[in-house]
Amino acid sequence: MKDAVVGVDIGGTFTKFGIIDRMGNVLVEGSVATDQTDDINVYLAGLGDAIDSAVNGLGGAVSIKGIGIGAPNGNYKSGSIEFAPNLKWAHGKVVKLVELLQKRYKMPIAVTNDANAAAIGEMVYGAAKDINDFILITLGTGLGSGIVVNGDLVYGYDGFAGEVGHVRAMDNGRVCGCGRRGCLETYASAPGIKRTVFELLAKYNGNSELSQYSFDQLDSEMIYKAATRGDKVALEAFQFTGDLLGMKLADSVAHTAPQKIFLFGGLAKSGEYILKPTRESFEKNLLKIWQGKIAIELSQLAEGNVAILGASALIWQEMNKQ
Amino acid sequence: MKDAVVGVDIGGTFTKFGIIDRMGNVLVEGSVATDQTDDINVYLAGLGDAIDSAVNGLGGAVSIKGIGIGAPNGNYKSGSIEFAPNLKWAHGKVVKLVELLQKRYKMPIAVTNDANAAAIGEMVYGAAKDINDFILITLGTGLGSGIVVNGDLVYGYDGFAGEVGHVRAMDNGRVCGCGRRGCLETYASAPGIKRTVFELLAKYNGNSELSQYSFDQLDSEMIYKAATRGDKVALEAFQFTGDLLGMKLADSVAHTAPQKIFLFGGLAKSGEYILKPTRESFEKNLLKIWQGKIAIELSQLAEGNVAILGASALIWQEMNKQ
Repeated sequence: MKDAVVGVDIGGTFTKFGIIDRMGNVLVEGSVATDQTDDINVYLAGLGDAIDSAVNGLGGAVSIKGIGIGAPNGNYKSGSIEFAPNLKWAHGKVVKLVELLQKRYKMPIAVTNDANAAAIGEMVYGAAKDINDFILITLGTGLGSGIVVNGDLVYGYDGFAGEVGHVRAMDNGRVCGCGRRGCLETYASAPGIKRTVFELLAKYNGNSELSQYSFDQLDSEMIYKAATRGDKVALEAFQFTGDLLGMKLADSVAHTAPQKIFLFGGLAKSGEYILKPTRESFEKNLLKIWQGKIAIELSQLAEGNVAILGASALIWQEMNKQ
Repeated sequence: MKDAVVGVDIGGTFTKFGIIDRMGNVLVEGSVATDQTDDINVYLAGLGDAIDSAVNGLGGAVSIKGIGIGAPNGNYKSGSIEFAPNLKWAHGKVVKLVELLQKRYKMPIAVTNDANAAAIGEMVYGAAKDINDFILITLGTGLGSGIVVNGDLVYGYDGFAGEVGHVRAMDNGRVCGCGRRGCLETYASAPGIKRTVFELLAKYNGNSELSQYSFDQLDSEMIYKAATRGDKVALEAFQFTGDLLGMKLADSVAHTAPQKIFLFGGLAKSGEYILKPTRESFEKNLLKIWQGKIAIELSQLAEGNVAILGASALIWQEMNKQ
């Protein structure tokens, strides 16, 4: 029998899971709806049944050693999901996820947030295999960060460390979902670059192929496509985004001095369009001792399964420590 | 025979050292000049002789277990002092301090920078005894920082982590000694508040008791004294300094989520004058999950011996881990 763990990725609409071996092979995967109930117990009963059925489908070939979970506002230290606005059963409250799941599964269970799970995934399966000090930045609907120091994820006193999306990038800047203004993620994220495009459309009186889209229609992939065709507004939006991201990442280096910084998520798929201005601004803003020494690279995790791989890695990593 | 370690504090002019027991008692102390030679070997021979003579003076009462050193630009990972502008024998070059000292002393020897040494001192002897996640900020001629995560100092990949003095506090801000502009330490440090006072004297046409001093004469203690007498320029300078410091410390929390932040050094001696505006701005700028939860306090280390205590703690801490 082969050892395996369950990796679970809880999103607002769907929860994906996979049974994953030590090499990162996904032996089987499945999903359940996240948003069909307000009752965490109903949700977890359905998820447990789906997991058990997937394990049974493997016909006794694997021995499940633990369950790793990535979720918005997942807190490793408390084992809870705390005040997650996009999760129906965790909106405005604290859900003790690990405690609840341990009633059914007598094995190691751990939860962390999406960006932390991705950072651990990068460490166990990706480009950070031999790197003990790095930062992973997810550029998706927000900006998430997983900070690794000495081979360990930084959770902080309360388990909420690594909120680089909420450092201040601009005085009196854009309104952020967190209630403050000018947070980095209001600029450097998929919605952030869209907001920049809309500012630029206003500035240049719509002189861009992107002028045909409403705010609701436009997404970061369309901005990327326009940039590849040389659209000036799209190119300037990437430049502006990279300028701010690079500047703030230089401040992050002043905290933990990582060897590398990895970019991951929707906006990172724009490749050089986001990398080049970010790297240039980063170098310009770094303290001299770090100039030319710290690489910003794209994550090597495949987009599809990264969340469940990262979540499973949370358990493998703990088992490796014992 | 009692175990003891040597704590060494290398400053630009003098090098102080002490023989220190596990409880933090300074059994004997001494000093040598730092700036009388360009030759590191000559300097270290003199320092070694002074240390040996101090140990001999204790008449065999102690067994020396190691040497801990705090020095500007001291790098724990490389054991070197690197490009320290204020040290005659380390100006513009890398001095392999640990390697050189180990020719004479066959025992654990470690070096780190002043702020890191203070943070370790706070952990071993001070207010952070039971705290695993904290940040110590030194507000002296610069702004130094020691970041502790999970009970360990964050050194980073290259040993230079914790340069919070060089995060950007202001776009197109004040010229910094590091060659960039707007670094936090150009505002939040002893020279930083002096620069603020000079801006305010210009703004208010010198309407302050501080108008009688030249830039060379004025120091942070005089500004503190003026503030205690209600001088408006001095009070506004503390307010402005605290506003920026609190704002940037909120960004630091977004990285490592400490339980507490300690302030130490010359400017911290101003007590509530610097604490109050810093705390207010900090709270206002924190992400909601941290509001009201993270204390900013003064260090509990006595100013006099903190550097040699902190340096000695570097060795005690390593011995405790074994």
